[in-house]
Amino acid sequence: MTNSSATPIRWTEDGTGLVILDQTRLPEEVIEVELRSVQDIFDAIFTLKVRGAPLIGITAAMGVAALARQDEMAEPKILRYDVGRWCDYFATARPTAVNLSWALARMRDITRENEDDDTETLVAELAAEAQAIWDEDVRMCAAIGEHAVGLIPEGGRVLTHCNAGALATGGIGTALAPIYLAHERGNTMEVFAGETRPLLQGSRLTAWELKQAGLDVRVITDSMAGAFFQRTPPDVVLVGADRIAANGDVANKIGTYGLAIFAKHHGVPFYVLAPTSTIDLDAGSADDIPIEHRGEDEVRNGFGKLTSPADVPIWSPAFDVTPADLITGIVTENGVLNAPYAAGLEAAVGAADEAVAVAMDAEAEVTEEE
Amino acid sequence: MTNSSATPIRWTEDGTGLVILDQTRLPEEVIEVELRSVQDIFDAIFTLKVRGAPLIGITAAMGVAALARQDEMAEPKILRYDVGRWCDYFATARPTAVNLSWALARMRDITRENEDDDTETLVAELAAEAQAIWDEDVRMCAAIGEHAVGLIPEGGRVLTHCNAGALATGGIGTALAPIYLAHERGNTMEVFAGETRPLLQGSRLTAWELKQAGLDVRVITDSMAGAFFQRTPPDVVLVGADRIAANGDVANKIGTYGLAIFAKHHGVPFYVLAPTSTIDLDAGSADDIPIEHRGEDEVRNGFGKLTSPADVPIWSPAFDVTPADLITGIVTENGVLNAPYAAGLEAAVGAADEAVAVAMDAEAEVTEEE
Repeated sequence: MTNSSATPIRWTEDGTGLVILDQTRLPEEVIEVELRSVQDIFDAIFTLKVRGAPLIGITAAMGVAALARQDEMAEPKILRYDVGRWCDYFATARPTAVNLSWALARMRDITRENEDDDTETLVAELAAEAQAIWDEDVRMCAAIGEHAVGLIPEGGRVLTHCNAGALATGGIGTALAPIYLAHERGNTMEVFAGETRPLLQGSRLTAWELKQAGLDVRVITDSMAGAFFQRTPPDVVLVGADRIAANGDVANKIGTYGLAIFAKHHGVPFYVLAPTSTIDLDAGSADDIPIEHRGEDEVRNGFGKLTSPADVPIWSPAFDVTPADLITGIVTENGVLNAPYAAGLEAAVGAADEAVAVAMDAEAEVTEEE
Repeated sequence: MTNSSATPIRWTEDGTGLVILDQTRLPEEVIEVELRSVQDIFDAIFTLKVRGAPLIGITAAMGVAALARQDEMAEPKILRYDVGRWCDYFATARPTAVNLSWALARMRDITRENEDDDTETLVAELAAEAQAIWDEDVRMCAAIGEHAVGLIPEGGRVLTHCNAGALATGGIGTALAPIYLAHERGNTMEVFAGETRPLLQGSRLTAWELKQAGLDVRVITDSMAGAFFQRTPPDVVLVGADRIAANGDVANKIGTYGLAIFAKHHGVPFYVLAPTSTIDLDAGSADDIPIEHRGEDEVRNGFGKLTSPADVPIWSPAFDVTPADLITGIVTENGVLNAPYAAGLEAAVGAADEAVAVAMDAEAEVTEEE
């Protein structure tokens, strides 16, 4: 963590609930909210109080574990059934980010793998798995940062979009991870945050967390991005991802595709930074990625003021897809990949699975030795 | 006029003031404001209560005429001096649109050309010139519409940016003129209005005036434009202009350049529609066009809510420049021009000057005959 006030999630003291930073209130108010019920957790994800592909996976997993702790008197069979039900429900909160279903699949697997465990053991295993998902994310963020820090020239200009930072992950972010590391190592770069309509994650969240950490950050609106590339082009564009298809097509926050076209037109390198949990090998290409559409009022009434006539329809996809051929490189915790992406992405997922297996074996050995 | 409620300007009944629609309040409130003082008129232009390159020229000219009517007891010398002073002041309200200084130069010329006139005659001449600037704009809008209406296929999809409609001109707009004509003639096209951050002229004004006139209009945010081109590309992009350089480079509302790049990337024709008064032959290229930068609070506090931390700087140019090579055609009241633009733009300005001279001769003849 670069600073404690940006911590987007933690357990309640007794571990039966979660405390999250309500990201819809930033930067006007820094307010923490306690989540205790199934509905609390679903709503926090659905209404974007917590957001960011890695963080919603972590939140859902921790949510399942916290609810399980409340269920400590239940029959193991009932708890298994409940966990399945919660996982099904939470998975429907946001359709595009694959990390959500990925994290929930890991929680569900716990209840399937350990068939003879009693409730107490099961609850402990679920809590350990949720904590592991979080801890792994912290390490993945750091590794992504290490692999990408060299992409930012000394005193250079970096453009990012939406928020792929500490507020979107369990650690120091994905797209922002190399920025934090570069800053730590004395690079006096300038960071430009694209505003990111409709929900302004760039101007509200990225600007806030980078400023809190003492970085030199500036905001541009999405409409200014073209002129920005024309007049004072960035040295590199760094963005996160909500889902990466097997061929390297990337779904990310709406507006990302436009930046990729600008980068191509102006000869600026364009990198996607994401943990391997974002890679969906079952999606062959962008065509297999469901794109979430959000309500018209997020555009029309997003600021408590009518910004478009109430009877004019609004087209509001929350994500767009950047085709692999516009992407200079994809950075995961396992390194930097370049086109063609198919083999590299498959290997990165394989390496990640192996790393998890090794970690689990190591844990198992420790447990056996105890 | 396509509908009376969208009339953005008129004289007060006694002609000594102006009544404008306060465009900063739309679409929440339809409120008319009376302008009577030098400061009222300057502020209305400066704070964008009236905006749009043609309309601010008309407003400034009518403002000078209205103030002159208040000055009817002054010595002719004093009135000439005052007109010069008002013109100097109003010209500083917005730097990018050339129509403002063009219209004010015409008002100033009146006081220079008719050196022996008494105050009453001078006041009448100023009022007639302001009315002529307005009337010419109405005709120019209609002519632009006629020249461009064939660019919109039957049942097609049109994308526009900012507001270059009835609210930006004295007539039916520039970019929106062919849309109104196509609609009148039964074309069931769909119009997409880009939101246009920071001041939302697309979602607030274009959506409002087209909806009022019964058209099928939808809104997208600027961040959605790339995905829009990718998923459901428009048949044509139609935008206005604030200044056109001699080589065909076009300054227009921030965000226009980005749309031009998307149009090129996706093979969609991109047209600029503007009266010849927007052409500045003294500006050789984009480099000679001053770009207005607006205050940070238009981005940060534009909705009465803090959307970015107060201590994070914001880069906020109000306009960008689209190089001539991204423009499929420029439509003026004299027809459609294609690249290379230099000769065509010069000829269009020449034809316009000639048309004004002919009209003035005709008027002079009528006056003589009376």
